[in-house]
Amino acid sequence: MTSLASKTGLAYQIVDAIRSVVGRKYAGLHEPCFNGNELTYIKECIDTTYVSSVGKFVDRFESDIADYTDAKYAVAVMNGTAALHIALKLAGIESGDEVLVPALTFVATANSVSYCGAIPHFVDSNESTLGVCPHALHSYLKKISKIRQQQCINTNTGRVIRAVVPMHTFGHPVDIEGLLDVAKEFHLIVVEDAAESLGSTVNGRHTGTFGLMGVLSFNGNKTITTGGGGAIITNDKVIAKMAKHLTTTAKVPHRWEFIHDEIGYNYRLPNINAALGCAQLEQLTGFLDKKRNLFKRYQIEFKKIPQVKIFSEPNDCHSNYWLQTLMLHDSVADQRDSILAVTNDAELMTRPVWTLMHHLAPYQDCPKMDLSMVESLEKRLINLPSSTYSS
Amino acid sequence: MTSLASKTGLAYQIVDAIRSVVGRKYAGLHEPCFNGNELTYIKECIDTTYVSSVGKFVDRFESDIADYTDAKYAVAVMNGTAALHIALKLAGIESGDEVLVPALTFVATANSVSYCGAIPHFVDSNESTLGVCPHALHSYLKKISKIRQQQCINTNTGRVIRAVVPMHTFGHPVDIEGLLDVAKEFHLIVVEDAAESLGSTVNGRHTGTFGLMGVLSFNGNKTITTGGGGAIITNDKVIAKMAKHLTTTAKVPHRWEFIHDEIGYNYRLPNINAALGCAQLEQLTGFLDKKRNLFKRYQIEFKKIPQVKIFSEPNDCHSNYWLQTLMLHDSVADQRDSILAVTNDAELMTRPVWTLMHHLAPYQDCPKMDLSMVESLEKRLINLPSSTYSS
Repeated sequence: MTSLASKTGLAYQIVDAIRSVVGRKYAGLHEPCFNGNELTYIKECIDTTYVSSVGKFVDRFESDIADYTDAKYAVAVMNGTAALHIALKLAGIESGDEVLVPALTFVATANSVSYCGAIPHFVDSNESTLGVCPHALHSYLKKISKIRQQQCINTNTGRVIRAVVPMHTFGHPVDIEGLLDVAKEFHLIVVEDAAESLGSTVNGRHTGTFGLMGVLSFNGNKTITTGGGGAIITNDKVIAKMAKHLTTTAKVPHRWEFIHDEIGYNYRLPNINAALGCAQLEQLTGFLDKKRNLFKRYQIEFKKIPQVKIFSEPNDCHSNYWLQTLMLHDSVADQRDSILAVTNDAELMTRPVWTLMHHLAPYQDCPKMDLSMVESLEKRLINLPSSTYSS
Repeated sequence: MTSLASKTGLAYQIVDAIRSVVGRKYAGLHEPCFNGNELTYIKECIDTTYVSSVGKFVDRFESDIADYTDAKYAVAVMNGTAALHIALKLAGIESGDEVLVPALTFVATANSVSYCGAIPHFVDSNESTLGVCPHALHSYLKKISKIRQQQCINTNTGRVIRAVVPMHTFGHPVDIEGLLDVAKEFHLIVVEDAAESLGSTVNGRHTGTFGLMGVLSFNGNKTITTGGGGAIITNDKVIAKMAKHLTTTAKVPHRWEFIHDEIGYNYRLPNINAALGCAQLEQLTGFLDKKRNLFKRYQIEFKKIPQVKIFSEPNDCHSNYWLQTLMLHDSVADQRDSILAVTNDAELMTRPVWTLMHHLAPYQDCPKMDLSMVESLEKRLINLPSSTYSS
């Protein structure tokens, strides 16, 4: 490995920079850290036999998540995808609707729209947030839509554009306040995909609490993990109640009868996974400090390489720095794949941003705006080793 | 409680009979038992940080399930509902198809058909298996369908009847061989809902391995549990591969790229839940012995009460006796609710069978055959405390 790093060229400079931050050993992209009450709480589940979807850790995890995010309600589910699916159903997304979704996102954002029988409509990002650009979206909607009976109609397709699902990319908050203005003008429901942004705030307010609902993920690669897990957060009491009902097979509570009053889902988070989540949440503040520290150390190192910069939180935002992100200058964008190869060969796990949604086979025929910014970003973004233990 | 049990009347006789088997303390319907390597394996997940959907316990659990059931392949997923959904998708169920489903089942069987955009078509049960009656189904299909281009067409609705999903009720095998004959004659794909029947066999062959696919559940109330979990079992290599792909967001394996070649699902079982499953599976033989012993003890007690009988495994079958089941004689069917009330008041958890599917609001307009037997069974079935610790 030494021979690789001692070579010259941008990729090898980047290997050196990463190593000077995370050390010379293997560095994963984002590995969880279990230094708290994880085993104690799980042992309690085993000892009491409450391992499934009813149990005190599920209730506590929901309450802890609501407290932490300052949302009135949290409903814990099996993963972020399930949370998005139910949030969109509760937002009233129906078959044949269009939903505005960033082209630069993980595929779950688009898939959850498809699960509702609706069509994702892809929108461009802003370079300073990596998320949906309110200004570009506003101009685009002005051009392609009209408002009829308080609904936004896509004049090209004739379909209703019902909602927008901004995503807080790598934990960096989107310009949510700008988007709320656009959404209001065009009668769009806002569901925030905050899967990556637990701990990220905008002017002190937690991401996911600006829209009608927000969605969190606790997958194994996230800032805190429940193995697999997610949550819907909302300030709307009725929606919270419906979310719990719909994710619990729509079973009407009864001493023994099985009445299901609609087509529900088996999406609740098991108690054993919630136990892990409760223990992880106790450590979140420490994790966030470490992730911010890691960012600062990367920032110092990458200032020495003029063709790249480490992505920093947008103005007025406090980011969780979930995945540390390197942005290549246009002039070296063609070196992305060689940088990925050299860093991964050096056992420093890096990855590009997701393939853009409109480039994926199932979504290539969906409606989309001009996507120049995300096309450019796709060529220039590289995620770096981001585990808390690295700092 | 003594005063209740000393009263006369059928309900109180039943309380006495249950108590003489399970003792005088609270008895749950089906509580899991963790006396093996559960914590050891979970600790290994925590120590290695592999808690999410990639990990050695997921691989081992799949291999162990395949070995145990003698299926060639097993794909572990989040729960039985997810397994059914994917199995039906892989069976080629499409929007507008009809799928034959028992009216007497847990709602997940019907819901998974709905998730595919298809229509459940409800069929009657056999009193000796509680599952779909092949003879009644054969007569019914003769009457309402015709075969056109190797497809079974419902002549009333004009829709294709694509598949049948027999369910092994409370672990008692359906007449699967009879059903395979009917399915062959009418060109129906068979997906077995074996969610309740891990450990149940027909002529020595495990339930779930007769159809194109079978589906298992490891929910908290099942014979073994992973918290929440399920599996698809199949002897078809291509289907097994597709099941894993479709439940892993349809991501095409690549060193770093995110290519998803179809609309996939986030349904994989987390490693931490699989760890629990591996430990539980090691104890399955012991659990099954205890459940059979419990059945025998109930059988002795309930022989003393002529108006009821304890349900026993069908001919040529070996049942797991997941939920012990009391069958009331017609003459006392009107006492079902009072028996449920008195037993539950006595802290002996009993429950009726599920509300029949065609009585549920979302399914009341679905096609159905004459359902006299399940209508009768619904009034006469009561599940008894069935935990392994009771024996």
